[in-house]
Amino acid sequence: MSVADVCRSARRASRALAQADTAVKDAALHAIAAALRANADEILAANERDVAAGRENDIGEALLDRLRLDPGRLEEIAAAAERIAALGDPVGEVIDGHRLPNGLDVRRVRVPLGVVAVVYEARPNVTIDAAALCLKSGNACVLRGSTSAAASNQTLSRIAAAAAVDAGLPEGAIGILAGGGREELAELATQSRDVDLIIPRGGEGLKNALEAVATVPVIYAAAGNCHVYVDARADMRMACEIVINAKTQRPGVCNAAETLLVHEAIAADLLPLLLPQLAERGVEIRADERALALAARDGASRVAPASEEDWSAEYLALTLAVRIVDSAQEAIDHIAEYGSGHSEAIVTRDAAAARHFQRAVDASCVYVNASTRFTDGGEFGMGAEIGNSTQKLHARGPIGLRELCTFKYLVDGDGQIRR
Amino acid sequence: MSVADVCRSARRASRALAQADTAVKDAALHAIAAALRANADEILAANERDVAAGRENDIGEALLDRLRLDPGRLEEIAAAAERIAALGDPVGEVIDGHRLPNGLDVRRVRVPLGVVAVVYEARPNVTIDAAALCLKSGNACVLRGSTSAAASNQTLSRIAAAAAVDAGLPEGAIGILAGGGREELAELATQSRDVDLIIPRGGEGLKNALEAVATVPVIYAAAGNCHVYVDARADMRMACEIVINAKTQRPGVCNAAETLLVHEAIAADLLPLLLPQLAERGVEIRADERALALAARDGASRVAPASEEDWSAEYLALTLAVRIVDSAQEAIDHIAEYGSGHSEAIVTRDAAAARHFQRAVDASCVYVNASTRFTDGGEFGMGAEIGNSTQKLHARGPIGLRELCTFKYLVDGDGQIRR
Repeated sequence: MSVADVCRSARRASRALAQADTAVKDAALHAIAAALRANADEILAANERDVAAGRENDIGEALLDRLRLDPGRLEEIAAAAERIAALGDPVGEVIDGHRLPNGLDVRRVRVPLGVVAVVYEARPNVTIDAAALCLKSGNACVLRGSTSAAASNQTLSRIAAAAAVDAGLPEGAIGILAGGGREELAELATQSRDVDLIIPRGGEGLKNALEAVATVPVIYAAAGNCHVYVDARADMRMACEIVINAKTQRPGVCNAAETLLVHEAIAADLLPLLLPQLAERGVEIRADERALALAARDGASRVAPASEEDWSAEYLALTLAVRIVDSAQEAIDHIAEYGSGHSEAIVTRDAAAARHFQRAVDASCVYVNASTRFTDGGEFGMGAEIGNSTQKLHARGPIGLRELCTFKYLVDGDGQIRR
Repeated sequence: MSVADVCRSARRASRALAQADTAVKDAALHAIAAALRANADEILAANERDVAAGRENDIGEALLDRLRLDPGRLEEIAAAAERIAALGDPVGEVIDGHRLPNGLDVRRVRVPLGVVAVVYEARPNVTIDAAALCLKSGNACVLRGSTSAAASNQTLSRIAAAAAVDAGLPEGAIGILAGGGREELAELATQSRDVDLIIPRGGEGLKNALEAVATVPVIYAAAGNCHVYVDARADMRMACEIVINAKTQRPGVCNAAETLLVHEAIAADLLPLLLPQLAERGVEIRADERALALAARDGASRVAPASEEDWSAEYLALTLAVRIVDSAQEAIDHIAEYGSGHSEAIVTRDAAAARHFQRAVDASCVYVNASTRFTDGGEFGMGAEIGNSTQKLHARGPIGLRELCTFKYLVDGDGQIRR
C-alpha cells in the first residue's frame, strides 16, 4: 500500500473508531497484549533479523541496544498496552458547558483527533505504545518507524492490527509505513486531508525534515535545556539533592538539568558542598568566571570555563553549566534567553521568590523545590505519554490521552434561529 | 522598524504583559477607547485618505464600504474595546490540578501565548479589536492590515499604543507592520523565535500564501461549508425556519448554510412548503435529481440542477444546494465527504437520530434543532472572538480570550527528587 492508501484507510477507520465504546477499545488492547505474548517467538525472530542487519551495517552498540527485544522487554510492551487499557477514556468527557440566554444548551465534549501519525526512531516498543495510546483515545494511527527496525515493527503492527480487528475495531486503525526515506516522510507530512496530527519522536534532523515540508499540523517534542536556580535563601541540602537528581538520575533525557544558576549570596557556601558530590558522580562542570574562581579556590576537579555555547547546550550527558547570578530576576532573564520552555526549577525558602519565579518563567513546567525530572506523563498521573511538547499550542508538556483529542461543541435547541 | 524589530519588541513587551494585573489591562482598554474618541478627527481624516486612495485605485464599492469609518463606526470600535475590558481575565485561571503520590502539588494554569500576530484585510476595526483581545489575554500583538487601510491602521494603532503605554502597559505591546507585500508576510511568518501564533483573517489566497512559508504556528479560519439536515421526523415549520435562517439571515458569513439535506420520507412534504419561501427571499436552488423532480412537479422557481461542485461550494451568497438522502447515515456520510468541519445541524424530533448525528458528525459545532448561525464567540458567551477555527488543534470553533492562551504546569514540592 502507498502512503496515501495507508492514510486513507486510517481515515476511514477513524470514523468508526471515534464511535467505539470504551469496553471495545479496552478489549482490543488486552487482545493485543495477549497476541504479543502468544506470538513472542515470531516477534523475537523478526527482531533478531533487524539486530543482525544492524550489526552488519555497523549501527553501533547504543542503537543496537535500543533496537533489541528479548522476552522481558516484549512482556514489558504487552504490559504497557494493558496499563493503557486501564486508563480512563478521554472520549466523551464534557469539558464544560452552559446555557445561552436564548435557551440553547452548549456542551464542549472531548472527541478524538481522528488520524494521528507517529514518526519514531529505532525502539520497536514505540510501535505498540503509540498504537495503544491512539486506539484508547479513539484515534486511528499511522506509524512510521526507522528502517533499522522494519522487520520488528512490521511484525508487531501486523499482530496488533489483527488482534484489534478480531476484538471488533475497524480494519486500518493501525496503519504502518514501510519506513523508507525522506520521500515517504514528505508524502506523509502532506496528507492533510487524511492525517490530523504528526508527532515526531526523534532528533533535530527529523524536526528539520518535517518543518520544511509539513502541511499536516506537527507537535514537536523539542529539546529540553532545563535549569535549576538555587536562590539566596535555599535549603542547602535540598538544593544539592535536587541539582544532583536533576543532572545525574538519568542524564540522557529531555527533563534532565543542563544549567545550574546560583544566587551570588549562597554560591560561596553551596558550591564547595555541591561540586565535589557532582564530581564524584562523574559530572563535568562548565563554569562562568565567578563560579570558576570559587571552584579554583576550593581546588574542585572537573571544572572548565563555560563558553557562550554552554548556556544553550542540551548536553544529554554528565555535563553541567554553572553560572552565578545577582538576583532571581537575573536567573529568570537567563532562562528567558537560553531556556527551551521545557522544565525549570527554583530551590528556595522564600515564598515571594518562588511565586515570582513561577509566574515569570515561561515554560511547560515550573517547579518550586523539586527536581525537573518529574516532567513526564507517568509521573504526572496521565498514565502514559507519547512525548513531551515544548510548544505552546494544543499540547504543552506531557502528551497523554487527552492531548490526543480535540473537542466539539454540541448545541441543543428547540428551534432557535438567529435574529 | 523592520518586521523582525517589531516582533522582537513585541516579545520583550510580552514578558511584562504576561505579568500585568487585570486592573491595569482593563484600564489600558478604557484608555484606548477614550483616546479613539478624543482623536476622532485625526482618525477619520486618515481614513478619508485611505478611502480617497481606494477610490482612485478603483478597489470597488464593497471594499470601500468595508474600509470606510464614520463617527458611528468609530464609536462602535471604542465601545467594543470597553466590552472586551468587561470580560473575565483568562490569565491565571486554574484549569485543573491534583496532588501526586509523592506529595507534589500540580496546577495547570492558563497563561498568555506571548506574541500573537493577526493578519487581516480591509476593515480597520480589526486593528483595535485584535489589539484589545490580545492585550486582555496578556499577549503582545503584531498587526498586519492591508495596504488599502494603511493610514487608518497606522493612526489607530499609534493612538492605541500610546494610550496603552500611558495606562502602564509596556512599549511594543501593540506592534504594527507597514502592510506591505508578500515579502513582509513571509518575513512575519518565519519569526518563530518571537511570534507564537499567527491568525490570518482572510480568504484562501492569504491561507495559501502563509501555508507555503510559515514556520510560526498558524490557526486558519477556513471556509465554512455548513449543512442543515432535515430528518424524517422533523417538525416541518421548525425545519423551514431553521433552513431559512441558516441560509438567508446573513448569507455572506462562514456559519451560513450552503447545503440542505432532506430525508426522502419528508422531502415531498417539506420542499413544496420550503422552496417558495426561499424563492421569495431570492434564494437560488441547486438541486439533485430527486429534489429537482419534486421542484418541477410543484413548478418551483429559481431551481437548477446541482453539479458535483455544488456539494463543496461555499457560496457565501443566496444560493443553496439541496440533496435528498435515504437515511440520517447518508446525510452524515455526505457531510463527512463534503463538509469543512465548521457547523452542522440536524432538525428532528427523534432523540436517537439527534444523538447519532451529534456523535458521528466531525465538526466544531453540531446543532440539534437550531440554526448554524449561532457559531460565534459573541453568541457562545465568550464576549468576543478573533476568528473561527475549523482546525482541530488548540482552538476549534470561536477563538476567544481563552483560545489566545496556553497553560503551564506549576509544581510545588518540598525537596522531591525522582527515584
